[in-house]
Amino acid sequence: MGMPLELNTMIVTKGKEQKSSEKEFMLIKEGYRLYPLDIPIELRVTKEGEPVCLVKIKKLQWEKEQTTIIYEPVNDLDV
Amino acid sequence: MGMPLELNTMIVTKGKEQKSSEKEFMLIKEGYRLYPLDIPIELRVTKEGEPVCLVKIKKLQWEKEQTTIIYEPVNDLDV
Amino acid sequence: MGMPLELNTMIVTKGKEQKSSEKEFMLIKEGYRLYPLDIPIELRVTKEGEPVCLVKIKKLQWEKEQTTIIYEPVNDLDV
Amino acid sequence: MGMPLELNTMIVTKGKEQKSSEKEFMLIKEGYRLYPLDIPIELRVTKEGEPVCLVKIKKLQWEKEQTTIIYEPVNDLDV
Repeated sequence: MGMPLELNTMIVTKGKEQKSSEKEFMLIKEGYRLYPLDIPIELRVTKEGEPVCLVKIKKLQWEKEQTTIIYEPVNDLDV
Repeated sequence: MGMPLELNTMIVTKGKEQKSSEKEFMLIKEGYRLYPLDIPIELRVTKEGEPVCLVKIKKLQWEKEQTTIIYEPVNDLDV
Repeated sequence: MGMPLELNTMIVTKGKEQKSSEKEFMLIKEGYRLYPLDIPIELRVTKEGEPVCLVKIKKLQWEKEQTTIIYEPVNDLDV
Repeated sequence: MGMPLELNTMIVTKGKEQKSSEKEFMLIKEGYRLYPLDIPIELRVTKEGEPVCLVKIKKLQWEKEQTTIIYEPVNDLDV
């Protein structure tokens, strides 16, 4: 009677993001993943790579054991 | 640098659910709320009321400080 | 860069609880498990069994991929 | 019937940490806060300040609406 999830502190795209609007990107990950919304978090292409930029997640969706997030870059890197 | 959320173990509808398909209902709640998906949880109309039935949440969405869930009744109450 | 955890809505003891004080019990579970504290949740002996009583978790601890909870029975079952 | 918690992706000490063993520190925060264990996260003194180092949380405890964490510095900053 438990639901497995994964607590994430950054986004790792593995290059699989898609543009979803002029300034937003969408990424689908396997499993239910918990990310913080509306606060700056690091985005990396690979887990071992350098941070590419800071982004804010604007939307998170769980369905059929997949997590979909919509995020946008944060302009000021010192936020 | 934190994201407030609320851990929920049951659904309290306050009568605000909407039918979203033949056997599914949709409910919007204020704030980011964490519910378990895909496992039976109780549904109540009010916090103090009796459980009405067991449901499974099939989809959860966080956006603009609101949580939207889609759920369906579980037929066998002894699941 | 993620931490696996399991969202739980009830306690399943499998008979492994220990008395930790006059009115409190302690239970150790494998893995990091997220339970709500300070609100009434069901306690069962087995996952498929009937609820035994309502309890409130007073303390939760994560360490070395184990979860330890301290809980006490809720006297009024209609809480 | 919900439990408020806060999802955190980094530690902000505000200078309130205490040494708890030769290489470990303890920090108490108000409220129930969810941090990832066993993976490197940033430690800052203030929310707006620069990251001081990477640490791993080895233990997390929730009790009486307080969160206590035990963490240790990560030696290799490129982990």
